[in-house]
Amino acid sequence: MEELNRITPEQFKAQTKFPVVVVLDSIRSMNNIGSIFRTCDAFNVEKLYLCGITACPPQKEISKTALGATESVDWEYAEDVVALVQKLKKDGYTTFMIEQVDESHMLDQFSFQDHEKIALIAGNEVYGVSDELLPICDAAIEIPQFGTKHSLNVTIATGIVLWEAVRSKLAVGH
Amino acid sequence: MEELNRITPEQFKAQTKFPVVVVLDSIRSMNNIGSIFRTCDAFNVEKLYLCGITACPPQKEISKTALGATESVDWEYAEDVVALVQKLKKDGYTTFMIEQVDESHMLDQFSFQDHEKIALIAGNEVYGVSDELLPICDAAIEIPQFGTKHSLNVTIATGIVLWEAVRSKLAVGH
Repeated sequence: MEELNRITPEQFKAQTKFPVVVVLDSIRSMNNIGSIFRTCDAFNVEKLYLCGITACPPQKEISKTALGATESVDWEYAEDVVALVQKLKKDGYTTFMIEQVDESHMLDQFSFQDHEKIALIAGNEVYGVSDELLPICDAAIEIPQFGTKHSLNVTIATGIVLWEAVRSKLAVGH
Repeated sequence: MEELNRITPEQFKAQTKFPVVVVLDSIRSMNNIGSIFRTCDAFNVEKLYLCGITACPPQKEISKTALGATESVDWEYAEDVVALVQKLKKDGYTTFMIEQVDESHMLDQFSFQDHEKIALIAGNEVYGVSDELLPICDAAIEIPQFGTKHSLNVTIATGIVLWEAVRSKLAVGH
């Protein structure tokens, strides 16, 4: 097995991030929140925003799946997700909800490469992203699905779309 | 919100699958096993192999995260993962372990497009893929990571690599 080149939380905080933020819009499960912290650590995300009913660290149930990532990933609670997304747009982020809507761009036919600053918004496990965000977000991204449930766990969906965003940054040598 | 075109488990079983199988090499957590069932349903996977200590349905803890996918996804228990991988190779599958090893292909620099039949092997949460598989698998795929832990949850890593395999099938209009 290779050397893993692990870094400390301090080194993580100091290193240049990909210009990508993740917004959690009322995620109910602390296991899911912690898991997304861990993914944001792995993918060198600039910031994780916790909105609405999304619980914030410190919480034992978040730590169980975050495995330390709550100490490295920069995060902030923002109660009003609509106000946050409007602020992110003003700050130059292209805002993408991860959602199955009529206007969705299918992930296999979409490229993040034209977008410098990226905000990905993931919604509640049952209700998805808030309806109020539909006219506000710049676009919706949908992961093609072919099964009986037509739904992926929110941590998996976020991981996949985040990977595509990170891949676009690697491609341009960011 | 759009119509989701959900199908029944019977319709799922009848539909043509992507020529992709997933192999779980001694996954410890039933939550993780169930979550991977759900992802395999969404991504229309041919078969899910449960090996070694990986628990099999029916199990309440698997169902909690599988959300019905144990009824749709074709699965089989195979105690000996080495024998299974050898059989899959004989059956024409290119076998890829999802693992961080010296010989890994980085996922952003790799394409599944040259491979018709694909087997993805995911390993134990702590120990990874069995050492015995290293000389047997055709290749190792690594997801680039930049964080303090240098590890993704196995369900997220499997979801991301499986998505890339599925995307290669969508690209050729499979």
